[in-house]
Amino acid sequence: MERHFDEGLKELHKDILRMAALAQEAIFKSIEALKNRDRTQAQVVIDADNKIDELELVVDERCVDLIARYQPMAGDLRFITTGMKINADLERIADLAVDIGQRVLELADKPLLKPLIDIPKLSAIAQGMVKDAIDAFINKDMALAKEVIISDNSADQLRNQICDELVNDFLAKDAASAHRAVPLLLIARYLERICDHATNIAEDVIYMAEGKVIKHHPEKLAD
Amino acid sequence: MERHFDEGLKELHKDILRMAALAQEAIFKSIEALKNRDRTQAQVVIDADNKIDELELVVDERCVDLIARYQPMAGDLRFITTGMKINADLERIADLAVDIGQRVLELADKPLLKPLIDIPKLSAIAQGMVKDAIDAFINKDMALAKEVIISDNSADQLRNQICDELVNDFLAKDAASAHRAVPLLLIARYLERICDHATNIAEDVIYMAEGKVIKHHPEKLAD
Repeated sequence: MERHFDEGLKELHKDILRMAALAQEAIFKSIEALKNRDRTQAQVVIDADNKIDELELVVDERCVDLIARYQPMAGDLRFITTGMKINADLERIADLAVDIGQRVLELADKPLLKPLIDIPKLSAIAQGMVKDAIDAFINKDMALAKEVIISDNSADQLRNQICDELVNDFLAKDAASAHRAVPLLLIARYLERICDHATNIAEDVIYMAEGKVIKHHPEKLAD
Repeated sequence: MERHFDEGLKELHKDILRMAALAQEAIFKSIEALKNRDRTQAQVVIDADNKIDELELVVDERCVDLIARYQPMAGDLRFITTGMKINADLERIADLAVDIGQRVLELADKPLLKPLIDIPKLSAIAQGMVKDAIDAFINKDMALAKEVIISDNSADQLRNQICDELVNDFLAKDAASAHRAVPLLLIARYLERICDHATNIAEDVIYMAEGKVIKHHPEKLAD
């Protein structure tokens, strides 16, 4: 019984790591598609979302099944219910990569508004935060979870900077830029929402391990 | 024991209905603030979010506690784990109302771009979908859950119409409209994401009750 439960937990680790890898890959590929204005690559990201959707359901089933079958005690129970929440976050991260892919389809036949520097930078931050948040969960690494929460500030700042520039230097100056600037503005927001999901995950990890509410209380991070 | 469990479940119903009421109120007030370009009202929505954040944690605790204490069987267990997911959706819906409030602060000192008709319409759809999705959960009303999923199509269409109009009739014609059109465009997207959360809830309700995967498979709605 005990052994089967441990095996079930290990499978859950593996599934969540796989979800996270697929989500990170989707972000990476969607931004590559943007950089190359590559319609085919964008479509690949959009089509691959099915796989993540299916896996989300498998993970959810595994979690409910583990609880129903083994009636785990407090610590393990909280690990599993946290896993269910993280699973939902990862699925939505992948959805946001699909949103990026769709904006790339709109942009693919238009010249780039400007060389892309900050958006790939924000994307790299987002991918790193997702990776770290999941590692923090699997390894119950509180220091890493806290780092993820702190790095959300730089993601917010970079997002604001990108959006302000798109509005002030393009949209507010040249109406002809609208069809190219608006999709970029949305992509910057999608990336920042990915960072928010990673932050959610990190907050849940801290709550799981310490029973301490960081969620909605960033000032408690230093405790 | 049985009686205490039933009482716990009833409390969970009440908490989730309260979360949903707060979320609906936040959407309503944020759009009223927009209509009246009322900075104070927008700030009220932003400040009220704390209450919803606190309640989210209470509900989460209640769910884990119910599972740990009573080790409920399959049906009740699934109801509770679904409640946890719905709880997270409701909290994010309230966050989106805060996002609307923040855009209202940006718009408050500027004349309106055009009379607001479609955005309040989309807001009414969003509020209705949230209400129905929660009622479907509490009453295990599958027909109502399916209605919610179907109405997401009209929300999508209305969102697209609003955004196309803002880009084509304003941003692409008159660069001077940028600072007023972009926040409206974002508000339309926030509202549509609220509808998406309501749809998530409805899909989870159907899965909970029928074990049928509507999530990511809208074509199965007719079954």
